Parts: sequence; C-alpha cells; structure tokens
Amino acid sequence: MIKILIIHGPNLNLLGEREVDLYGKTTLDEINRSLKKLAHEEAVEIKIIQSNSEGEIIEAIQKAKEKAKAMVINPGAYTHYSIAIRDAIASVNIPAIEVHLSNIYAREEFRAQSVIAPVAVGQISGFGVESYLLGLRAAINIAKKNKTSR
Amino acid sequence: MIKILIIHGPNLNLLGEREVDLYGKTTLDEINRSLKKLAHEEAVEIKIIQSNSEGEIIEAIQKAKEKAKAMVINPGAYTHYSIAIRDAIASVNIPAIEVHLSNIYAREEFRAQSVIAPVAVGQISGFGVESYLLGLRAAINIAKKNKTSR
Amino acid sequence: MIKILIIHGPNLNLLGEREVDLYGKTTLDEINRSLKKLAHEEAVEIKIIQSNSEGEIIEAIQKAKEKAKAMVINPGAYTHYSIAIRDAIASVNIPAIEVHLSNIYAREEFRAQSVIAPVAVGQISGFGVESYLLGLRAAINIAKKNKTSR
Amino acid sequence: MIKILIIHGPNLNLLGEREVDLYGKTTLDEINRSLKKLAHEEAVEIKIIQSNSEGEIIEAIQKAKEKAKAMVINPGAYTHYSIAIRDAIASVNIPAIEVHLSNIYAREEFRAQSVIAPVAVGQISGFGVESYLLGLRAAINIAKKNKTSR
Amino acid sequence: MIKILIIHGPNLNLLGEREVDLYGKTTLDEINRSLKKLAHEEAVEIKIIQSNSEGEIIEAIQKAKEKAKAMVINPGAYTHYSIAIRDAIASVNIPAIEVHLSNIYAREEFRAQSVIAPVAVGQISGFGVESYLLGLRAAINIAKKNKTSR
Amino acid sequence: MIKILIIHGPNLNLLGEREVDLYGKTTLDEINRSLKKLAHEEAVEIKIIQSNSEGEIIEAIQKAKEKAKAMVINPGAYTHYSIAIRDAIASVNIPAIEVHLSNIYAREEFRAQSVIAPVAVGQISGFGVESYLLGLRAAINIAKKNKTSR
Amino acid sequence: MIKILIIHGPNLNLLGEREVDLYGKTTLDEINRSLKKLAHEEAVEIKIIQSNSEGEIIEAIQKAKEKAKAMVINPGAYTHYSIAIRDAIASVNIPAIEVHLSNIYAREEFRAQSVIAPVAVGQISGFGVESYLLGLRAAINIAKKNKTSR
Amino acid sequence: MIKILIIHGPNLNLLGEREVDLYGKTTLDEINRSLKKLAHEEAVEIKIIQSNSEGEIIEAIQKAKEKAKAMVINPGAYTHYSIAIRDAIASVNIPAIEVHLSNIYAREEFRAQSVIAPVAVGQISGFGVESYLLGLRAAINIAKKNKTSR
Amino acid sequence: MIKILIIHGPNLNLLGEREVDLYGKTTLDEINRSLKKLAHEEAVEIKIIQSNSEGEIIEAIQKAKEKAKAMVINPGAYTHYSIAIRDAIASVNIPAIEVHLSNIYAREEFRAQSVIAPVAVGQISGFGVESYLLGLRAAINIAKKNKTSR
Amino acid sequence: MIKILIIHGPNLNLLGEREVDLYGKTTLDEINRSLKKLAHEEAVEIKIIQSNSEGEIIEAIQKAKEKAKAMVINPGAYTHYSIAIRDAIASVNIPAIEVHLSNIYAREEFRAQSVIAPVAVGQISGFGVESYLLGLRAAINIAKKNKTSR
Amino acid sequence: MIKILIIHGPNLNLLGEREVDLYGKTTLDEINRSLKKLAHEEAVEIKIIQSNSEGEIIEAIQKAKEKAKAMVINPGAYTHYSIAIRDAIASVNIPAIEVHLSNIYAREEFRAQSVIAPVAVGQISGFGVESYLLGLRAAINIAKKNKTSR
Amino acid sequence: MIKILIIHGPNLNLLGEREVDLYGKTTLDEINRSLKKLAHEEAVEIKIIQSNSEGEIIEAIQKAKEKAKAMVINPGAYTHYSIAIRDAIASVNIPAIEVHLSNIYAREEFRAQSVIAPVAVGQISGFGVESYLLGLRAAINIAKKNKTSR
Repeated sequence: MIKILIIHGPNLNLLGEREVDLYGKTTLDEINRSLKKLAHEEAVEIKIIQSNSEGEIIEAIQKAKEKAKAMVINPGAYTHYSIAIRDAIASVNIPAIEVHLSNIYAREEFRAQSVIAPVAVGQISGFGVESYLLGLRAAINIAKKNKTSR
Repeated sequence: MIKILIIHGPNLNLLGEREVDLYGKTTLDEINRSLKKLAHEEAVEIKIIQSNSEGEIIEAIQKAKEKAKAMVINPGAYTHYSIAIRDAIASVNIPAIEVHLSNIYAREEFRAQSVIAPVAVGQISGFGVESYLLGLRAAINIAKKNKTSR
Repeated sequence: MIKILIIHGPNLNLLGEREVDLYGKTTLDEINRSLKKLAHEEAVEIKIIQSNSEGEIIEAIQKAKEKAKAMVINPGAYTHYSIAIRDAIASVNIPAIEVHLSNIYAREEFRAQSVIAPVAVGQISGFGVESYLLGLRAAINIAKKNKTSR
Repeated sequence: MIKILIIHGPNLNLLGEREVDLYGKTTLDEINRSLKKLAHEEAVEIKIIQSNSEGEIIEAIQKAKEKAKAMVINPGAYTHYSIAIRDAIASVNIPAIEVHLSNIYAREEFRAQSVIAPVAVGQISGFGVESYLLGLRAAINIAKKNKTSR
Repeated sequence: MIKILIIHGPNLNLLGEREVDLYGKTTLDEINRSLKKLAHEEAVEIKIIQSNSEGEIIEAIQKAKEKAKAMVINPGAYTHYSIAIRDAIASVNIPAIEVHLSNIYAREEFRAQSVIAPVAVGQISGFGVESYLLGLRAAINIAKKNKTSR
Repeated sequence: MIKILIIHGPNLNLLGEREVDLYGKTTLDEINRSLKKLAHEEAVEIKIIQSNSEGEIIEAIQKAKEKAKAMVINPGAYTHYSIAIRDAIASVNIPAIEVHLSNIYAREEFRAQSVIAPVAVGQISGFGVESYLLGLRAAINIAKKNKTSR
Repeated sequence: MIKILIIHGPNLNLLGEREVDLYGKTTLDEINRSLKKLAHEEAVEIKIIQSNSEGEIIEAIQKAKEKAKAMVINPGAYTHYSIAIRDAIASVNIPAIEVHLSNIYAREEFRAQSVIAPVAVGQISGFGVESYLLGLRAAINIAKKNKTSR
Repeated sequence: MIKILIIHGPNLNLLGEREVDLYGKTTLDEINRSLKKLAHEEAVEIKIIQSNSEGEIIEAIQKAKEKAKAMVINPGAYTHYSIAIRDAIASVNIPAIEVHLSNIYAREEFRAQSVIAPVAVGQISGFGVESYLLGLRAAINIAKKNKTSR
Repeated sequence: MIKILIIHGPNLNLLGEREVDLYGKTTLDEINRSLKKLAHEEAVEIKIIQSNSEGEIIEAIQKAKEKAKAMVINPGAYTHYSIAIRDAIASVNIPAIEVHLSNIYAREEFRAQSVIAPVAVGQISGFGVESYLLGLRAAINIAKKNKTSR
Repeated sequence: MIKILIIHGPNLNLLGEREVDLYGKTTLDEINRSLKKLAHEEAVEIKIIQSNSEGEIIEAIQKAKEKAKAMVINPGAYTHYSIAIRDAIASVNIPAIEVHLSNIYAREEFRAQSVIAPVAVGQISGFGVESYLLGLRAAINIAKKNKTSR
Repeated sequence: MIKILIIHGPNLNLLGEREVDLYGKTTLDEINRSLKKLAHEEAVEIKIIQSNSEGEIIEAIQKAKEKAKAMVINPGAYTHYSIAIRDAIASVNIPAIEVHLSNIYAREEFRAQSVIAPVAVGQISGFGVESYLLGLRAAINIAKKNKTSR
Repeated sequence: MIKILIIHGPNLNLLGEREVDLYGKTTLDEINRSLKKLAHEEAVEIKIIQSNSEGEIIEAIQKAKEKAKAMVINPGAYTHYSIAIRDAIASVNIPAIEVHLSNIYAREEFRAQSVIAPVAVGQISGFGVESYLLGLRAAINIAKKNKTSR
C-alpha cells in the first residue's frame, strides 16, 4: 500500500484556536480526520506528524526515506528561512508537496518568499483546509504515477 | 448550473509542441478535454478561452462578471507583470484560482514573483496538467460554498 | 477649434461598479458627461476613448498626432509598466496630462511608480472625478498657450 | 467664509530670480496675486505663508487646526525627507493638496519620491504657476464638499 | 495572582561568563534573583525559562496560553530570524515585551532588525540587567490594566 | 540634586488631540505631570522642553552639557533622518534614553529605522505614556550609577 | 528558398517623423526597402510586420513556426518587460536576432535591461538602420548554417 | 573688495570640546582666527556664520546673493540629507566649496554620501582645520578668476 | 592531551546516500574514521557529534567550553542563517574552523553567505572529505600554538 | 586608406583551445584571417592587437588617436569593470564597436553589464566569429560615412 | 614529477613589513621557504611567482597550461573584482586552490565577495601562512588523484 | 629635503587634448610645471609619474616607501574599483592625498564612489588644476607636521 507522509510545521497545533480571522475555525484534528478520510477513499496509508522543532521536522523527513512515496508538508513559519528543511527534502528524494492554509502572497512581504518551494514538486496555497486535501490528491497522483513508471 | 471560467494565457496554445522538457507533451486540447470531463462529473459548466493578448484576457475577465462563480487562470508570462490583469480580477469580484503547469519557484528568479497572486484566492503550481484539475476542484468547491452561504 | 484627446486606460469601463470604496460610485459615463460639459464651457472639442488594450492605446495616441493639441490620459495599471505607451507619448509630441482618480502614493508601493510621468507635462492624482476636470483645465490652458505662442 | 491655508516651502521666496530655465520667471508675489484673485472669485479666504524652516512650517500647519478647511502646500525640498511635516499634516486632520511647480518625476531620481504624498489628499505637479491654481481649485472643492456633508 | 512568563533565549545561560565587555558580569542567576525580588514587591508570580532551542521556546509560549497575563522575552539571536517564535507570540495572544541587554542598534547591522518587534507590545534594549526589570515593570502594568478593563 | 533633561520632539504638542487611535488620549501636559511626580518621588530634578524645530532641539541638547546627568528624548519624526540631532547627542556626552509612545516596528517600514538609536544608551518603545516613565527610571538609574562610580 | 521574419515593435511605424535626434530621419519604409534589397541580393525571402500590440507580435512569432528559418526582431519598448514575447521566441525554436536602432546602453537606465536578450541568439544595437542590415546578415548566416548542418 | 561667506553647520560650535579623537582640539574660534588671517593676507573680506538650524543656513545662503563672490560651507550633518540647503546653493548661483574636517569616506557608511556635493564646485575633506584654509584658498581663486573673466 | 570537537550539522548523517553528484559517495562514518586516524597520528583526542537540531548544536558548543582547545564545524544549512550558533561560538571563546564539503561559492547565491564565518578563525570549503582533514590539521595547529604561547 | 583598429582583450589568445562549448573551436588566428580577408575586400587597412593587460589596451587605444577612423573591440572580462578602458575610448574620440563572441545576456548575471557600452557607438554580441565580421562591417560603414561628411 | 604553480597577487611582496597586526610578521620569503620544504617532503615540484599586475598574473596562469597539475593562488585584492583572472583560471582547466592569509569574511564587507571562488576547486582563508600550506596539501592531493584516475 | 610623490593615473596623459569641456585645456605638462613651481617655493622635492597600468602604479607606491613623506594621487578611473591600489597605499603607510580635476559627485553615479578615499588622509575634487596645487599644499603640510612631531 502506498505510504504518504503529512507534516504540519510550527504553531499549527494551535489551529482553530488562534487567529481565526486568518486561519479559520477548523482544528488540526479536524484537518487530520479529513485527510484520513480521503486517504481511506483513495486506499493509501498516511502518517501524520506535527512539530514545532526544525530539528524534529528534519528527522521526520529523513525517516520517511525508503518508506513514503510522497510527502505533503506545511512548513509554517519555517517556509521562509529553513534551508535545513529544504536540504532534508532535497536529500531524501521523496516528492514533496508544499501546502499553505492562507494565501502567503497576500500577507506580509516576507511571507511571499519560500525557501522550500524550489525543491518541492509544487505548491498549493490559500484554500484553507482544502489546501491539504488538494495537496494529498496531488501527492497520491504522483506516488501512483511513479509506482507505475518504475 | 454553476459556471466557471477557465483562462489560458499567452503561448499556452503551443503546449505539447514547445519546450516539452519543461511543460510535458500534453496539448492544450487534451488539457481542455480533461477539464471538461471533470466539469461534467462535478456537474458544473465551464467556459474556456485562450489568448495571447493582455487586453483580450482583461475583456474575458470583465465579461465573466455576474456569470461565472469562479475562475481558474493560468496567466502565463503575464503573471509576472500584468497589473492590468490583476486589477481586472480585483474589479469583477469573482474568486480566482491561479494555476501554473511548472513550479515557477524552481525556475528563473523573475518567475518567482506573481503580481496576480495577492488578488487571487490561492495558487497551485508545479503539477503539470494536474495543476488545472486541482485548480478546477478548488474553484468548484469555492463556488459551491459561496452559493450555499448566500 | 482646439481639440483635446481624453484616454481612459484598462478597467476604467467598470468604474462606479467595482471597488467603490476605492474609486467612488461615479460611472465612466458620468465622468465623460462632466468632461464634455467643461469642454463645452471652455469652447474646446474633446475626443474620448477607453481601452483595455495597450496596443489600442498606443494607436489612439499615434492617431492624435497633428490633430489634438493636448491629451489627458489615465493610464490605469499601465501607468506602472507600459514603456510602450510612454514612448508613444514621447513620439507624438503632444503635451500629455497624466491623471489618476485615487492617490497612487497612498496605496501599494508598486503604484507609487509611474513610467509615464517623466514624459508627461504634469500629473494630477487623488481627487476622484475632479482629477479629470483639473486635468482638462490644465490641458486647455497649455493648448491655448501653445496656440498663442506659435 | 471658508478659509484655506497656502504654504510655500524653502527657497520658493527666490522664485523668478533663480533657475528660471527650470521654474520660469514668475515671482512668488505674482503667484500670490493670482491665488488671491482666484480666492476672491470663488469667495474663499486664503492665508499665505512662506518659510525656509521646517519647524516654522510645522507650526503653521498646527496653527491652522480648527481654522482652515483645507491647505495647499508646496513643501519644496522638504517633500523628499521631512517626515516631521508629514506627521504635522496627518495630525491636524485638514485635507492637504500637495503641489509642485516642476514635474518632479522628470528630474533627479531622488525628487521622484515624496514622503508627504501618502498623507495628502492628492498631488498636482508640473504645471508651473498653474499647479497652484489647480491646487486651490481642488482645495476649494474639497472644503465645500466637507462643509455640505457635515 | 497575576502570572508573568519570563523567557531567556539562546546563549543567555552563559551570561556573565562570556563576552563580558559586551554583556557585563552579571550572571543569569543574578538577573533571575532581581526579577523575583521585583515580582515579590509587586505581588505577581513569575515563571522563568531559558532555552537554546527554537522549538522549546515556541512550546513554552504556547503553554503559557490562558495562564500568563503577559510575557517578557529576550529572544537572543532568534530575534533576527525566528518567524516561528513571532508566530507563536501572535498565536497565543498574550502581551509580549521584547527586551535586550545590549543596544542592538549600536552593533552589527543585522542585529538592528527584529522580526519579533512587530508582534510585541513594545521593546526595551540597551540597559543591561535593567532592561529586564523595566520590561517586567511594563509587563505588570499591562497585565494589571487588562485585568481591570475586562 | 541630579538633573535630567526631557525632550519632546515635533508634533508631540498635539498629543491627545490628534490621531488618538494611534497615540491615545493622554495630553502632553498629563505626561509631563506624571514625569514630574516620578521625579519628585525619586528626588531628581527634571527640565522639560518641546520643540518642532530641529535646530532648537540641537540647542537644547548642547545647553544641557555639564548640567544634565542624563536625558530622555522622544525625537518624533526626526528619529528617522536627523543626523544633526544624532551628532548633537554624540557631542555632549550625556547618556540619552530614546523613547517612543507607539511601537515604531509595527508601523510603516520607514519608522523602523532610527538614526538616533546607535548613539543612545538604549531605546524604549510601544508603551504609550509608560514609555516615558520607564525611560525616566532608566535615566535616573544611569545618572545615579555614574555619580557613584566617578 | 530560406524565409526570414522581420518584426518591428511598437512605435516604430513613426520612425523618421518622431524624435529624429535620437532615431534619425530614415522612415520605416526606407528601412524595409533596404532590407528587401539585401534579402534580394542574398536570395532569401523576408516577411515584414510592424505592430504596436504585444499580443499580435506573439501571434506573428507563433505563426512563423515551421516556416521561417530565423527572425530579426526590434521589440521596441517591449524589450524591457515583455516576458510574454520572450516566451513566444523560446517556444517556437527559431533563432532570433534582437536589434535596436539606438545604443540602449547609453540611454535611460531602464533601457539597459532586455528581457528578450537571454533567449535571443545575439543582439545588435546602436547602428541606426545599419543595425537591421547587420541583423539580417547575421540571420541569413545562421539560417544557411542550420540548413547545411541538418 | 571680494567678499566670501563662510558657513559652519550644526554642532560645529562645540568643536574642540567634543569628540576630540575625531575632530581634534582646535576650537571654532581658533579656526575662525586662522581664516581671518588668511583672508587678510589675500586681501579679501570674509563673513562667518555658524548655525544649528537648517532654515537659518538657507537664509544665510540666500542673503549672500549679489554680495558674496564665493562661499565655503561645512554643512555638518546636513551634508547627508538637506536637499533644502542644496537647493538654496543651486538657487543663489554663488560658487560653493564644500569642506569637512574629517575624512567622511572613512567613517560610517551614511556619511559617505553628500547631497550637497553635486551642486558644489568642489569638495575638500579630511584635513582638519586645514580643510577650511584650503577651501578658502580655492574660493578666493575662483572669485578672482570670475572677476577677471567677466 | 589536546581535545578537539568536531561538529557535523543538519543532514550530514545522510552523506554518501544523498545527492552523490554533489557530495560524493563517502559516508559520515568513513569521514569520521579518517578524522580519528589523523587525530591518532597527531596524538590529539577528538569528540565527534552530528545533529540536525540548532539547539543541540548550541548545547554541544557550550559544553566544549574549558574542555576543547579548538573545534571543526560544518554547520550545513545553518551556515546561512543561524546567528544563534554564531553567538554560541563567539561566547565560548574556542577557536572554530568552518568547513564545507562542497564549494559553497559555486552553488546557489544564498549559499555564498556564511553568518558563521565572521566569528570563525578561518574557513575551508570545496575539498570534499579532505575539507575536514585540512580543517582538523588547522585546528591542531592552532591548539598547539595556543598551548605553547600560554 | 581607411585604418581600423581591432582589439582582442584578455584570454582571447586561448580561443579555440579553451571552453569550446562556450566559445567554439575557431582560433584567434582564424578570426584574424577572416577579418583581414574582409578588410581586403572592403579595401581598408586593419591593425590587430591582443593583450591580457588593461594598461596595454589603454595604450593601444591612445596610440590609435589620429590614425584609426574606427575601432572594433572585444574587451573580454574587462567589459564588466574597466572604467579605465571606457575612459580611454571616450578620450580618443574614435568610434568604437563593442563585440562579444557569446551572448553575454544569456550567461552569469554579472556578464550582462558592460561599462564600455555607454561610450561605444553600438554593441554586437552572440554570433561567435561572425560578431567580429559584423563589427568590422559596422566600423567600415561608420568610418566611410564620417570621411564623406567631413 | 608533479608540478604545482603558486601565485602571490598584488602587495604580497610587502608581507611581514606592512600591516603586521593584520597579516603577521612572516615575510613572503619565509612563506616560500615553508612551501618549498613541504613540496620537497611530498616530492612535488613547485613554481612560485608574485606579481602586482593583473595582466602578468593572467599570463602566468596561461603559461601553466599543460605543465602544472594544480595551482595555489592568493589573488590579493584582485579576488574581489578581477573577472579577467577568473576567466584565465576557467580557461586553462587546471584545478585552482584559492587561499587567503586573513579571514576575508571578518573584514570590510567588500572583501567578503570573491569573484574567483566560483571557478576555484575550493577556498582556504584565515590561517595565516598555514593557509598556503593547507592549500598546497589540497593541491597535491588533487593532482595525485587526477594522475591516478586518468 | 622633504620628498613628495605625485601620481597621475590612467588617461591623464591625454589631458588638455581630450574632453576639454570636462577637463579643461591645461595639459599634463603644464600641471607638472605648476606643481614643480610650488614645490620649489615650498622647498620640497617632488617626483612625478604617470601610468595607465594598475600594476605600475602599485609598484610606484611601493617604491616610495621610506623615501616619500607624503603622496598626491589622482587615481583616475582606478578610483572606482582598484582595491589593489588601495591596499598598496594602506601597506606603505605614507599619507596619501586623493585629488580629482572634476567634481566626481556631479557626474555619472558610479564616479561618486571612491574605493581609495577610506585609506587616504583626505580628498580634494572639482577645482581643475587647482585640485593638484591644493593637494600638494596639504601634502607638504602633513609631511612637515609629521617631521616635527617625530
């Protein structure tokens, strides 16, 4: 069964409680339930982690090597400066889908730059919870294609 | 029936023939067929246009006012400088999904800046043809939600 | 009789309908009526065009050569990047008055730069419909002075 | 009777004597006479001051509070760096019209930036003495509108 | 009893031993004792943590939610790049006072930029140990005011 | 008795009347009363001046030489460009505490730069009237320490 | 017979009439006659178009595909911002020679940047009409070489 | 008798007392005595002023019109931002020699930029008191040459 | 016996497995064996750590204080932004040698900047495994020199 | 007989041997032979020099004064920084044609800037050996025109 | 026997005499003796040159072609701007090791940029004389490896 | 007898013949005669060299060590980029006076930056031939002072 890794970056554990004007009222648990539901429908297995620590996120990415066929990552604030996470993604050679709840191009100028994007397959931002679901769909698609073509 | 506008910007008519390393072998016709198929499945109506002219794209956006419930737009090269298209989108008040075939963040530096993104709902880039399909899904989602909530 | 060209750039046809917080409720038709009234009072002839297309605006400027004695132009979004319109103005050697409805210096940073301004006689911005009327007054003034001095 | 404040910034007292290629031969006295004539025609009262001192200009703006209904200001060289004058204008809450004799966008690059513009209602530049008269017209217009609407 | 969180960022555990020319000879323990003394005098309760890890600091901030009424934070080197800590502060909605021992504006250019400052209530820098005490005073002040006004 | 100079920069005389959303309703008189009360409690003498003129502020700083043991200065808009005030502070060799009512890092980008900060002992911003009181405390502290150590 | 496309960009139709100090007195017709004469001598066929519209220029480039063996293009003002024309050239895979009448490096700073140059074979600027003739020679050369080598 | 104006900008009245490492121990009085001695030797008349106020320096420059044949100016900190003083110099059309005690290119980066220099005849910096004497020599030279040539 | 600390930053644990075109096939274990061999030959003791966590690297540096006489550090991606690691190195006052496997100046532009370099003794980059060995030699050299000179 | 100077800048003596992917296999001797052949056909005399030394190139340009009627120069790497060569060209007042073998706009960013271009008549780049031949043609053209017109 | 070229750039002949605080007291002769000793030990032949002239350094690099198997170069001040030396290194295809006595990243900002580094194999800086010895070791290593692998 | 070195940089040998609008009609010989006359009057010995070669200028500076007591240098175009000449001046520890004929701050932007100025004692620019004479006076002054004080 195809395995896909889902990574939620820093402060996403507060989702639904914090800054609801910006991020909506859906909690991380609800997002995870939606993701699991879609995974079930598409018959793939997903592993979900959330961490506030750059080091832990790197570890999670490294551990996925040779297990996950794709990953969906919302790097949160690390999007804008963590070259270390970028290098981890580039190292493990697993296709990564970068997702964001909010439209990062319609906020502070520093949020419009992603150091992760150049090593990701693609990026989805601005659709709230739907960003994750579209991201998972894209991940499944790529994982299946790669499986076939190999 | 919900109506959605699909806009293909400049040079996208050459798709599948040009720079296949970068954009793949799928032609614009094939993309359009996939979009129509998904529209049919989701029971929405789509209108598709392609234009190389900034002025024509603006006109198309303006005409969609009070007809389309959402639009999916790949502004091609205009992504990076057409403030006029940006203003058109902002004017008509139709939710716009910006899509790109390639990962615009992994190419020349000037392609990493979108003047359209700040007025779009969200952005999807890097998944080839799939970018359009994910974009259409997002558009349908938004269109349906708006319909309900009004 | 002195002839003056009035050019309305992209998206100005939506005036009064779109973003009324920013641009007010006056429609383009109402602006044009005010302009015609002032022209009539001042005994000058005005020709008014609106276009969303950069190429068409250039054509309109070129055609004014040897006919119009001055022009009033609101280049809309083209203000910020159309060096081609700038060159057209410089080519035809007709005094151009650049006008803007809103105060372009109190909005997004990219709107504070006009590539047109260096080849215009002067610039009027921020007074809503009044910007056009002040602009037409300035144009008439210049046209009359030039007529006399030649 | 509506009261309007006119402020001439640094070095404008030399007008007509200095750099006549750039600023023309009209003296500040002649400008003031034209302004008074227009004020008389429009039945408003104007108060005119000229100062080379940033502090004095700030004082003049502060004193206008609760007296003037609008102000026309040519901040001269202070246009480009006096955040203190900008703050004074923002503080007193009187609509300010920024005017310039020359087209500040067709001169040295540093003159293209106005720190005053973002807090002004609008800006008029490039029409020589006419800039002041158009500015006074705009000011009267705004003052009358505000009077009515309150 | 009002609770206030005190956070010491990376390398502050070495205080008094390292770079004494720059940071003085007072150790972190001595600072903490002074803080506790002032807390006692002002009858508030303080909780103090020190961490070199960005992730741990984020966790500490998140845990303070619904407990602390204010926080005093010296983010150390993270001041200049940790958007993740910034987001944590913005998320928990506890007023944060940013403090620095040294005058960060009189050192290397990169230290003059704080990514934390825009989400803090205010900032105090340059007074050595006194920065913390002034910061705690400010925090108590805000905490008391909020208590009253609610 | 220790003497401390308090300097209020341009436009601060309008405090409490202007932009109350930004600066609060406290007037400059009220701030001065609070400062005097604290000075009385701490048994120091304070001299307070307010000026809108850069030159006058420089003179005030120069005159404090050999009299004041410290100064608290809110340079207002001059914070961002008056190298002349900066040089005056550097010249007289009196410890200067820079204070700001609002958090200058959470406002327009140009307000985040202080040319005064590198020559000040430290900086306090964002606490409203409290900024001044904390600043006076810091000044007293420094003045007393210097007295002892000499 | 080898076919070569010649494209004259915006405002070049006014050549010889406008800004003769800068561009000389030769009209576009005269340039075209010289080009045809050289084409005749070198036994190649040329197709010439002039357009003020970005969209039309893109169309002309696209239509040349599989017909022209090379193109000579003076993109006029579009040189400096039309990424859409750049993409069109890159798409059709026809060697493009960029030509300019004036030395674009000895004019305004913004004219020193060409977004077209990176996808052109080479660039010729500064020789007036001769720029076109040298450009056509270069184009013929390349077209012949490619013919032989295939 | 040839008249020459000498202007000492802000904070120069503190010379010899302040920052002696940087500016030396010579007082402004001593500099003025040296200048008068040289003036006497060269049989020219000098007028010396010092001011901390930008407005006063502008007034002094304006008053020199039609009296002084040259001026020597040390604009102090105003060197780096006073476009108003720059405009005053440009207005009065008296050759100005810019002098600095210290080498402004070997200090903080912002001191390496002079907004005055482009309108001065020339600049002399880095020679301490000698900068003034060399400047006066240069001024006399120019004044004499102009006298002869007219 | 002289003690030297070796620090491998984030993602270096994947060496030999990841991006072999860029970093070669040598694993971290093999590098460590080479380092130990050289340490043995030179009769020094080395302690080796690898961590993906910024906080842990800081802790390791702090713990080395008063134990290690020098350190060799490959900060990996943290090279480009970890001011916290920079401060840790500056704090402990142990000479640090910065090493990189690849030539960081021949890669992406952001990799050409090291925030660590200004506090390191020196930097060695581009020699693959040999970078570490040269770095260890340099460290031993410095450690021995310091021992002698004290 | 018209004399034309040809200058080959640094490292061009290695042509044909070095970096053949970038510069092709033609040697400098072969280029020179082609140039001599064209010179012979056009009945002009050419003098060719190659030098790796900035000083020698300046000398060569200076010596051409009053002898050569035009020069063709490939400044090699000096293109990007030798203001001294630029000044030499400007000094001797001989029309200079700048040529480059490769398209300098399609390479590293620093190669896109030529400090020579603003003082050259025009620039030809990207056509390999043909760049020189087109450059010589342009030079002959200009030299003949100047001869006639004088 | 393997031959290695050592190049000392401008002003290095003054070593040991000049700026000893920065560069130490070792003379160039002493460095050369150390280099020869190491060369002897490692049984390689070295050729050493020093030149203050950019042109001569280029010549030396070019002459090494087909003779030297590696080069160690301290380009001195040319490090920061000599694209001509960079091109020479790239042309001859001999592995180059860039060395610097001082840590160029801990000095003036302009010294932190090396235009040579991108074409060098690697860079060693900050170890004084030891930089050369480590550089020679690296060069020998590479030369030997290349010998074997061919 | 005090010895002073005078260095004329590149293209200054053409003085009086080239660009007379900019540099005047005085030849280098005439300047040298004036310098010798002043040297004779002041009883100092001067040595004059002119070179177009950066390397030769460095050599001349190095040779002056322990002979000249001061130098006057017009580095011509090298002013703006020759860090190698800067380093030579810094190395020999002879006070250097930088002179320029024209006002380098009133010309092209790139001429406003001098890499030499930070290591010079002072700078004199804009007085034509007089720049050299003032420079020599300054040099003599410094040389005499140093003689006395040692």
